[in-house]
Amino acid sequence: MAVKTINVNKDILGVNEALALNLKKAFEINNTFVINLMAAPGAGKTSTILRLIESLSADFKIGVIEGDIASDVDSRKIQERDVEVVQINTDGACHLDANMITAACSGLGIEGKDLVIIENVGNLVCPAEFNLGENIKMMILSVPEGHDKPLKYPLMFTESQALLINKVDLTPYTDFNMEEFQKTVRAMNPGIKMFPVSAKTGAGFGELTEWIAQQIRTAKKISGSSK
Amino acid sequence: MAVKTINVNKDILGVNEALALNLKKAFEINNTFVINLMAAPGAGKTSTILRLIESLSADFKIGVIEGDIASDVDSRKIQERDVEVVQINTDGACHLDANMITAACSGLGIEGKDLVIIENVGNLVCPAEFNLGENIKMMILSVPEGHDKPLKYPLMFTESQALLINKVDLTPYTDFNMEEFQKTVRAMNPGIKMFPVSAKTGAGFGELTEWIAQQIRTAKKISGSSK
Repeated sequence: MAVKTINVNKDILGVNEALALNLKKAFEINNTFVINLMAAPGAGKTSTILRLIESLSADFKIGVIEGDIASDVDSRKIQERDVEVVQINTDGACHLDANMITAACSGLGIEGKDLVIIENVGNLVCPAEFNLGENIKMMILSVPEGHDKPLKYPLMFTESQALLINKVDLTPYTDFNMEEFQKTVRAMNPGIKMFPVSAKTGAGFGELTEWIAQQIRTAKKISGSSK
Repeated sequence: MAVKTINVNKDILGVNEALALNLKKAFEINNTFVINLMAAPGAGKTSTILRLIESLSADFKIGVIEGDIASDVDSRKIQERDVEVVQINTDGACHLDANMITAACSGLGIEGKDLVIIENVGNLVCPAEFNLGENIKMMILSVPEGHDKPLKYPLMFTESQALLINKVDLTPYTDFNMEEFQKTVRAMNPGIKMFPVSAKTGAGFGELTEWIAQQIRTAKKISGSSK
């Protein structure tokens, strides 16, 4: 017998776009490169940010916007590294929107920041629909989540410019098929840049750091040698 | 310096409740016990359902409602076990609502079903806000997601009657602190029933199966010996 399928259409509100465009302009004027970091809960967003702070803060002035439904446990971890951080508590909302980021930017102060990393709410679905004026959307899929996720949560995989495949240190203990996973993702989004990493061990972060630094420099239209 | 925190309030729509109440009545009339299974992507919802089909289908007539944003890969896995399944594709929506379940029930036919398991969209946030007329909300948190999740995604932990701590086979390779995790959860939701399990190895499923069977029988108000 065939699987019975019911399609439920849903209008996606576009009200966020105007504010996101304003944010984008403000980031450009300030020469601030912005990464919107998205992933399911527990994929390793905060530990990735901590690694990037470690590897990028010598060359770039970094700020962080932390989005969580509740608590400031992640913000406190980042603040311990002497990096400016603003916590957004969405009080139940499942994603960040441009309105929240506008408020957060006035708290953070983007002037003089080369790089702002926005840690979105842990959710593989909703955050992908809301532009935040960012330069790039970067997502994380962690190995224990399984290699079948792109087909089930396609939007984030097609919207992202970079994909971190995190927790590669757990690969031997799972059924994760790296080759099949990358093939599926590439078919959906041929231009996406993929980085197998482990935020726990640091594996793969050299290449990732280099790529991000390059993106920042390209956005600033400054030659690689001047910074 | 203190962490700057911005609170963003959000109205949570209650329009779902009337439909959920109708569903609840329909389930009661049909003597159908309904589990709303929620978790982040990749926590192991489908593999848990497959295990429960294996252990419960000798005693109970089971139906499954599969909620996904896209694809029917999970439905096909369940159909292979000769269990009736209806696929809901939400087309971007991040959770199931009572309206979708009403439509799915007319496709599935709840008459004669002892147990309907609803696999919600993979999301640790939004599904917790929407009642589906279920008897119990059961959630999964998998070990690689980390023991700090209850503080960051509190609603699902406080709304659920049962919590499966899945992928315990990966515990030795992670920093997951089972004792701390259970203590945090119990402080938020003292009545919650917790089951450390592995859908991969089958560990812990004996106790879980027994508990679910007991819930079904209690709901049916039939003595344990008659079924």
